[in-house]
Amino acid sequence: MTLKSQHIPRATIQRMAVYIQVLESLQRDGKDVISSELLAKTCSVNPSQIRKDLAYFGEFGVRGVGYYVQDLISSIKQALGVDRVWKTAVVGIGNLGRALLNHREFKLRGFHIVGAFDCDPFKIGEIVSGLEVICSRRLKEKADEIGIEIGIITTPPERAQRATNYLVDAGVKGIINFAPARINVPDDVTVEYVDFFHHLYAVAFNVTLNIESE
Amino acid sequence: MTLKSQHIPRATIQRMAVYIQVLESLQRDGKDVISSELLAKTCSVNPSQIRKDLAYFGEFGVRGVGYYVQDLISSIKQALGVDRVWKTAVVGIGNLGRALLNHREFKLRGFHIVGAFDCDPFKIGEIVSGLEVICSRRLKEKADEIGIEIGIITTPPERAQRATNYLVDAGVKGIINFAPARINVPDDVTVEYVDFFHHLYAVAFNVTLNIESE
Repeated sequence: MTLKSQHIPRATIQRMAVYIQVLESLQRDGKDVISSELLAKTCSVNPSQIRKDLAYFGEFGVRGVGYYVQDLISSIKQALGVDRVWKTAVVGIGNLGRALLNHREFKLRGFHIVGAFDCDPFKIGEIVSGLEVICSRRLKEKADEIGIEIGIITTPPERAQRATNYLVDAGVKGIINFAPARINVPDDVTVEYVDFFHHLYAVAFNVTLNIESE
Repeated sequence: MTLKSQHIPRATIQRMAVYIQVLESLQRDGKDVISSELLAKTCSVNPSQIRKDLAYFGEFGVRGVGYYVQDLISSIKQALGVDRVWKTAVVGIGNLGRALLNHREFKLRGFHIVGAFDCDPFKIGEIVSGLEVICSRRLKEKADEIGIEIGIITTPPERAQRATNYLVDAGVKGIINFAPARINVPDDVTVEYVDFFHHLYAVAFNVTLNIESE
């Protein structure tokens, strides 16, 4: 499948991840088809939004029937480039890094964690979830050996930029940053920030508004 | 401070969390004032967007000077209702739940984790980060005793709805769901989904596009 447009809004990509999540849970429940109305309702968006989002990737859905669950999952995954294995490394083996290394969903979704890096001499050599923790300074050397395509940063904020530099030097073009710090990368490197706190802030804010309006 | 409008877009709330993160790192570096241009550049948004976002919360910034860092942090936190302590509970004490219980940023940002719940008899009674793991069925009883305002769900996907039901029964009005599953709540309960995978998908998608366009 070729993409109709390379200028796909971030919000569409975010919703595609929700559609996949909902479609996969329908698949687990043994559903073969779903109407666009029910899919929209389960994803908490309106049906025209789903049609608009999917239109970036091709033509889906059968009038009077809806969407074929399996076909739609495969097509979305192919369109997003997540129908293959991505070799992924985690930099920063604290509590969060360990949780991600042990998280069963990564492998299920094609993100195979092949490297675990930390600069703490007490952690280097330790085996976490079957991987030996390697000194972050050796990231480029290991990347040349095993191939690393995506880097996940789970260091404290003050070490995030150094972790970024190691990943960039190793030729990694995609970074997910869990550390609560902004990082600088060259133009050809994509960064996504995972920030729990904007979700906590949003919940606190909405709860506050509801209390005030009671 | 009273809010100019209660209809503040989600995207604004998300960016407010980024502004706080950047302002706090400026504060750590000893900066007292920042120009709107530099703040915008560091947050990767344009200056007019920042002015528009802040206008929901009041009047900020001094012409020719910029923003006073400390004042702006306090004002944003007050406006978002995060200038106080929120009693928070974690349901699901697996790897991710443990990582969150040990995550130093929660307390720093006012989200005090006061309860740890799980339904696994092998985990009940265990002490994690100074908290005793309590049976999820006792959530309401404990909430009546200690007060729980925000619930964080870190169960496997198939147990997320049950965890939600316990939280809702206990009167919790704000939920952050880390489990990869949609959940149903009454209208007066706010839910935020934390989904790592849309970030992974976005990175994979952008890396794929860059490879293809080379």
